[in-house]
Amino acid sequence: MHADLLLTNISQLATPRAIPQRGTSQGELAVVRDAALAVRGQQVCWAGPRSDWPGEAEREIDLGGRAVVPGLIDPHTHAVWAGDRLADFEARVKGESYEAILARGGGIRSTVRATADASIEELVTLARPRLQSLVRSGATTVEIKSGYGLSIEAELRMLRAIRELQREVTAWLVPTLLIHVPPTEGRGAYLREVREELIPLVAREQLAVALDVFVEREAFSVREAEELLDCAVRHGLRGKLHADQFHPLGGTEMAAARRALSVDHLEASGDEQLAALAASDTVATLLPGVTLHLGLAAGRARALLEAGAIVALGTDLNPGSSPLFSAQLALALGVRLCGMTPAEALVAMTANAAYALDLHDRGVLAAGRRADFLVLESGNWRDITYTLGGNPVSEVWIGGRRAG
Amino acid sequence: MHADLLLTNISQLATPRAIPQRGTSQGELAVVRDAALAVRGQQVCWAGPRSDWPGEAEREIDLGGRAVVPGLIDPHTHAVWAGDRLADFEARVKGESYEAILARGGGIRSTVRATADASIEELVTLARPRLQSLVRSGATTVEIKSGYGLSIEAELRMLRAIRELQREVTAWLVPTLLIHVPPTEGRGAYLREVREELIPLVAREQLAVALDVFVEREAFSVREAEELLDCAVRHGLRGKLHADQFHPLGGTEMAAARRALSVDHLEASGDEQLAALAASDTVATLLPGVTLHLGLAAGRARALLEAGAIVALGTDLNPGSSPLFSAQLALALGVRLCGMTPAEALVAMTANAAYALDLHDRGVLAAGRRADFLVLESGNWRDITYTLGGNPVSEVWIGGRRAG
Ligand SMILES: [Zn+2]
Ligand SMILES: [Zn+2]
Repeated sequence: MHADLLLTNISQLATPRAIPQRGTSQGELAVVRDAALAVRGQQVCWAGPRSDWPGEAEREIDLGGRAVVPGLIDPHTHAVWAGDRLADFEARVKGESYEAILARGGGIRSTVRATADASIEELVTLARPRLQSLVRSGATTVEIKSGYGLSIEAELRMLRAIRELQREVTAWLVPTLLIHVPPTEGRGAYLREVREELIPLVAREQLAVALDVFVEREAFSVREAEELLDCAVRHGLRGKLHADQFHPLGGTEMAAARRALSVDHLEASGDEQLAALAASDTVATLLPGVTLHLGLAAGRARALLEAGAIVALGTDLNPGSSPLFSAQLALALGVRLCGMTPAEALVAMTANAAYALDLHDRGVLAAGRRADFLVLESGNWRDITYTLGGNPVSEVWIGGRRAG
Repeated sequence: MHADLLLTNISQLATPRAIPQRGTSQGELAVVRDAALAVRGQQVCWAGPRSDWPGEAEREIDLGGRAVVPGLIDPHTHAVWAGDRLADFEARVKGESYEAILARGGGIRSTVRATADASIEELVTLARPRLQSLVRSGATTVEIKSGYGLSIEAELRMLRAIRELQREVTAWLVPTLLIHVPPTEGRGAYLREVREELIPLVAREQLAVALDVFVEREAFSVREAEELLDCAVRHGLRGKLHADQFHPLGGTEMAAARRALSVDHLEASGDEQLAALAASDTVATLLPGVTLHLGLAAGRARALLEAGAIVALGTDLNPGSSPLFSAQLALALGVRLCGMTPAEALVAMTANAAYALDLHDRGVLAAGRRADFLVLESGNWRDITYTLGGNPVSEVWIGGRRAG
């Protein structure tokens, strides 16, 4: 076997064993001690105990006893926005109600206004450092949603900003069309326009690979989301949902029945919703940054895992409900706030998050998978789940090349 | 007026107004827009609106519309330790009890063993990157406690490691002698040795400026702590306590009556303890990293503030109960987990934390104070309280010089 690069002296190489399957245990990591990892082109061509390496390599790098884990995959962000929500933040912690903040023009609609006013260049300039922060924290693949555009044209501008970012950010970016905020008037006409113009155009120009809909009392109904998801699937896009954030309205069951990629949030899910997810291949994506920032309940990770659901973790990076600029901290919060074990959290943010993005070539460090991996500061893989506030990630490798 | 350096184009210069006083409001920040800051030597010589600057400067730096706040002061860390607690961490999140972990040799006694076995050089090498992480996050002054030494000799080795670190770390380090873990046998003899040998020696060699004692059922009694604090004061050291972490045993009242610098933790304080603090100049130091890491209750910041106590925030950086390597995140957690406003949290980690360390020359950006300040990435001071996981600190200035 011939490799471009052999990384040696890896004290622990920790990786999920395989692509997730519902009903199987998800705390399972393979941890190889004194390991080596061989890279050819953008892929891993071999991984195992150093002493078993059967080939030769152009170049060898001694990692000095540090640990290696797969690159983190952040399956849920709103990293493109303009304006800020600092005044809202201060008002909310001082006790002002969400409704009062909305009533004086704050809240999500202020982000929609600022984003709709921004050019593609401005959106790119604003998003760039956010994505760089995620990469520094270990993210090698990042999903980014539109959804602050409201008008068809502003939504397209957000998706085009993501396309620009794909050219210049080292992480792999996955664009999602999000139908997020209902218009204050002309709701029916807007949804028709989304189905008849926006979704077909986005699919044709490959501006997104999936459609996401926010199902909530103040947002879209299950019925509306269902029509949108069905339309998306007809145009070759996959579906996913924001659901059960405040109220379990039935979106989760609808999405699971439609083989949606994921249902995200789930803070208010009841047993029925968890059972629907556990009986499906739809990933349950939990977002502990929201729990920390807003002080709300966390998604029920333990119940989901025990029922056999496939659980992922994401940052939900956004200015209003989760200003969480670190994939590593999302993982570490999954342990503290969702009660996941270190191994469950690492699987959730690697193999399972890849599955939630319909990416089957990453999230596991094994021959044939993308060489997206992290070299930690220490020799123990658990450090990536343990550290709060510091950065336990020493090197970020994306597609076989060192990115940071 | 003549300055070495004038920093201009500061969109917001936010600073506590003054050294804290009990009974006065603590959410008070002065925010100067379009400000300038003048530095002479290690001090601020002038701060105010740019248009009011009355002098000339050797050198001028345009900060490009970014915000400036005082350097953060972390008044409570255990940044010097050896070994790790990753196995404990995993066992605890999997549901193993604290007692079971202790019984098989884990817990704090494993840190004590590893630290007692380490040389001064090893302790310095291990602590250096932790302190660098704190500095990157905005800490310009950091307190560090001994306390994992147990034997007199090992405690002294920890304090000497801190002295070494003072020579090479850019932040101002404040050493504290902490009497932390009772010996498994010979308790009376140990405490006598602490009073008769360790405290006099530490005071004579100026290895610490204060004595701290852990008052708790499993640690030291109020009576034992009282004798230690009185002994420390006789030798010219200030006193402080770890108290009310799990049980309010009376340590807080004892320390407040003795004009201790601070009482730290306070997660289990009742109204009596809060009243004792509010009636004193003893600072109430809250440690939200512990709340996040262990999932326990937070200190009652709102009740303390409303009663008029002086409240500070710290990381409590330590391997067992708060692996929090960011002063900025401690501040941001003070808002989320303790219910403080952004302004209260910033005051708590600047002016009030300085007061908790008996340092009256910093924590406020005004003429005559140390030029310890942070330039943020954005133009809004609130970003330092808002950001989770990313680093909103662009530049760290310590004693008038750019440190990072
Ligand atoms: Zn979201
Ligand atoms: Zn402590």
